[in-house]
Amino acid sequence: MNYKKLGKILGKIMVLESILMIAPLIVSFVYKEDLKHKLGFVVPIVLLTLIGFLLQIPKPKRNTLYQKEGFALTAMVWIVMALFGAIPFVISGDVPNYVNACFEIMSGFTTTGASIITDITVISHSILFWRSFSHWIGGMGILVFVLIFIPESDDGSSMHLLRAESPGPQVGKIVSKMKVTTRILYLIYLGLTVLEVIILMFDKPVAGYESEQFFFSLLATFGSAGTGGFGFLPGSMELMNPFSQYVISIFLILFGCNFSLYYLILIGKIKSVLKSEELKSYLFIIGSAVAFVFISLVWRFETFPQQYTTEEAFRHSLFQVASLITTTGYTTTDYNVWPMLATTTLIVVMFIGGMAGSTGGGIKVSRIIIAIKGAYINVRKLINPRYVPKAKIEGKSLEENTINDVFAFITLYLFIILGVVFLLSFDPVNGTMTGIVSDAGMYEVKHGFFSNFSSTLACISNIGPAFEAIGPYASYVGYSAFSKIVLTFTMMVGRLEILPVLILFSPKTWKKI
Amino acid sequence: MNYKKLGKILGKIMVLESILMIAPLIVSFVYKEDLKHKLGFVVPIVLLTLIGFLLQIPKPKRNTLYQKEGFALTAMVWIVMALFGAIPFVISGDVPNYVNACFEIMSGFTTTGASIITDITVISHSILFWRSFSHWIGGMGILVFVLIFIPESDDGSSMHLLRAESPGPQVGKIVSKMKVTTRILYLIYLGLTVLEVIILMFDKPVAGYESEQFFFSLLATFGSAGTGGFGFLPGSMELMNPFSQYVISIFLILFGCNFSLYYLILIGKIKSVLKSEELKSYLFIIGSAVAFVFISLVWRFETFPQQYTTEEAFRHSLFQVASLITTTGYTTTDYNVWPMLATTTLIVVMFIGGMAGSTGGGIKVSRIIIAIKGAYINVRKLINPRYVPKAKIEGKSLEENTINDVFAFITLYLFIILGVVFLLSFDPVNGTMTGIVSDAGMYEVKHGFFSNFSSTLACISNIGPAFEAIGPYASYVGYSAFSKIVLTFTMMVGRLEILPVLILFSPKTWKKI
Repeated sequence: MNYKKLGKILGKIMVLESILMIAPLIVSFVYKEDLKHKLGFVVPIVLLTLIGFLLQIPKPKRNTLYQKEGFALTAMVWIVMALFGAIPFVISGDVPNYVNACFEIMSGFTTTGASIITDITVISHSILFWRSFSHWIGGMGILVFVLIFIPESDDGSSMHLLRAESPGPQVGKIVSKMKVTTRILYLIYLGLTVLEVIILMFDKPVAGYESEQFFFSLLATFGSAGTGGFGFLPGSMELMNPFSQYVISIFLILFGCNFSLYYLILIGKIKSVLKSEELKSYLFIIGSAVAFVFISLVWRFETFPQQYTTEEAFRHSLFQVASLITTTGYTTTDYNVWPMLATTTLIVVMFIGGMAGSTGGGIKVSRIIIAIKGAYINVRKLINPRYVPKAKIEGKSLEENTINDVFAFITLYLFIILGVVFLLSFDPVNGTMTGIVSDAGMYEVKHGFFSNFSSTLACISNIGPAFEAIGPYASYVGYSAFSKIVLTFTMMVGRLEILPVLILFSPKTWKKI
Repeated sequence: MNYKKLGKILGKIMVLESILMIAPLIVSFVYKEDLKHKLGFVVPIVLLTLIGFLLQIPKPKRNTLYQKEGFALTAMVWIVMALFGAIPFVISGDVPNYVNACFEIMSGFTTTGASIITDITVISHSILFWRSFSHWIGGMGILVFVLIFIPESDDGSSMHLLRAESPGPQVGKIVSKMKVTTRILYLIYLGLTVLEVIILMFDKPVAGYESEQFFFSLLATFGSAGTGGFGFLPGSMELMNPFSQYVISIFLILFGCNFSLYYLILIGKIKSVLKSEELKSYLFIIGSAVAFVFISLVWRFETFPQQYTTEEAFRHSLFQVASLITTTGYTTTDYNVWPMLATTTLIVVMFIGGMAGSTGGGIKVSRIIIAIKGAYINVRKLINPRYVPKAKIEGKSLEENTINDVFAFITLYLFIILGVVFLLSFDPVNGTMTGIVSDAGMYEVKHGFFSNFSSTLACISNIGPAFEAIGPYASYVGYSAFSKIVLTFTMMVGRLEILPVLILFSPKTWKKI
């Protein structure tokens, strides 16, 4: 292990985190918050800068990183970011419990949006900003940021780090092509972010919060750009005006797209964008899902509490599908009590997730396509043993290795879900299997199996809100500290797509070869 | 497609089914049932014999079957068996609805044990016998039976059929070695069956059913030998005496073992049995699961309705784990209202299933072992790209192809579960997501998401009873005809392990090459 080099990169990232924390500190000054809140950011800024510089002092003998070092470092960086990022919550007193704070900020960086806060109205502006800002930072990746803007880092190492942090099975290749492309991708991210804030400013302010329009537009954008989904108002996006809800839906779908598509548009290759199989599938899934949810809400062949107009039913269908397939987790209504067809559709899209190379989580559309093609090849081979597969994806031939990696990934995904659900079953908050009794939006705190299953899915897919006891109007606060730590790691496992975390905790990684 | 050869084998199997139906017909005479019940068996016997002989008349030009033909035939045979096997239920009037009857008998042949019968006490002896007997037939496989006992069939074709019908990733190789071995396996099956009946006869009769002891012992054995699980008393095995419950638990575990292990014992290779990784893992999983369930029932850190003595808690833990890991589905108590740790443990073992080459369903222990080893290899390769995997399973080196097939299988398993749950979400029986309200064993009929999810798992893994609205004291009768047909196919997909069914319904199969 090249500890000195690891320390050097880790140190750089700690300094970067301290710089990023200046933003919420400024918010704290703007809103004239009390000393506690300012100190909440000053203390970690000082600590991070100090430790960050100290770590960079030893000169590494070897300037490159092996693949395993890159993967382990990536997982380590995310843990360190969360451990320090949690400090402001504790010092400010907004979230006094450190385990809760770590859960909250890991949920932020991993763009999950699962929250342990029960009353959002008592949280200060600076902390609200920091939570939502962490989505924006985590969406594109922490290491990516460091590696593409700090010129010194060498390409050999950064490749491994980018691979470890980029979501989806394919994007690695595109990103590694050149650092320049990656920088452009980040600029596109920034551009879309600015655009969304500007468009949201055109809406009339949220009733009762007239002075907050810019602040809310910024936070709503951070949460949608990173497909994170932390709310800042009671009931997530429920109080936002319909115009804003539509705008956010559209931007969610845009941020769930592979960013290299925007790059292709910029360089004029619109034809190849239109040809993208993943894009077509992604839009097809969204279209069908919205249709199923809408039908389910309008036909009312099951009783459910809400009474929607047709426009409302369409808006909530579009918003909820966009929010859950991109694994954001914003909500505009209590989908927890929707009819079965609607909720089952939502659960299916929660498994699917966004496109590879987007800020969304989940299994990813491209993996689903590859798995289906792989299954088709298996069947064809049985029908005709002499069949030579010539499957393609995005015009390139689909290698058997890629297919096998995807199958392995989905299997591990399922195993991890089962394992986490099992660990959650020890939690004293669990009720018996009979589940939860709902009474006009009030939920009993006891968790049924479906609560644990859906919250595990919501964490590993980086969504946030789940179902039953962890529905859109509930929080994760009821879980024990042990369960919260398990779920914190589950979010990280989901964001980094399993392997870096397994490598960090594998004893073999730390042995000399 | 070699239609004539397909017809010939199908014809033979239809004749076989007619012969098997003589057994329940005799039961009908023994218990002096009315004409309807006798006709219920006579009619399909005549039909099957007639059509069966007609199908055998055309002489096939080619006497062999290609792999695709073997796989498609296997799936077809199971459908035909169910379509005719359902007739007695309808004619006798015990299950007047044909869709329900098909569901029930497919559940029988696939050894699922999911039932649409709400009051078991009104079902006649002959029908009770036929249901349980269908488990025994389906447990070892219908085609296997025909192919190993009818000398004429040639080895080339039977290989494909055996492969299509045998459960688990490995057993194909063992079975294909020689027909003689397979015959011995069937004799072992018969031997264990006789042994269980004899031991059960030593128990005192079930209170209130003194005259039925032999009949009940036989039915309980059929259900456990095939790991099917159809009950014949109200509350499944609840009324059986503790002695019988222990005996059944042990035999369930025995029938969940790979039958080639018994063959190895018979030929004196006890050492290689003790070395079997899959056996060790299987027993380890059972041991741990019983421990977790037992602790959960005894510690009572959650409230649940039942009050057990320590002996009862142990007995129910052992029985329920044995019943669900072998995917049988017998129950001795209402596990639906057990605490979360107990129920989550049960759900995890429902995914795992029995050993390859047993009569149990599910993903199979060997696939779980292979998947875990495969994941380990993937991680090792990332840690050290020069790593050459030398993983072994049961002493033989573990090929990459085997690992990939297992990953593909588990991925398809998950996709099919999601797809079926989605199809079930259209059912008008669904309530909203808030699930089910339990009141001392009484369940509302509305299905929550967890009802649909667990009933899908119970069908694809060939278990039978599920959770929530489809708990051990409920039946599948509430589902619509559409959902029942979907679940009937799900059971078949689970029993034949996906591929034969996909091949039967693939248009490419029916095209000329």
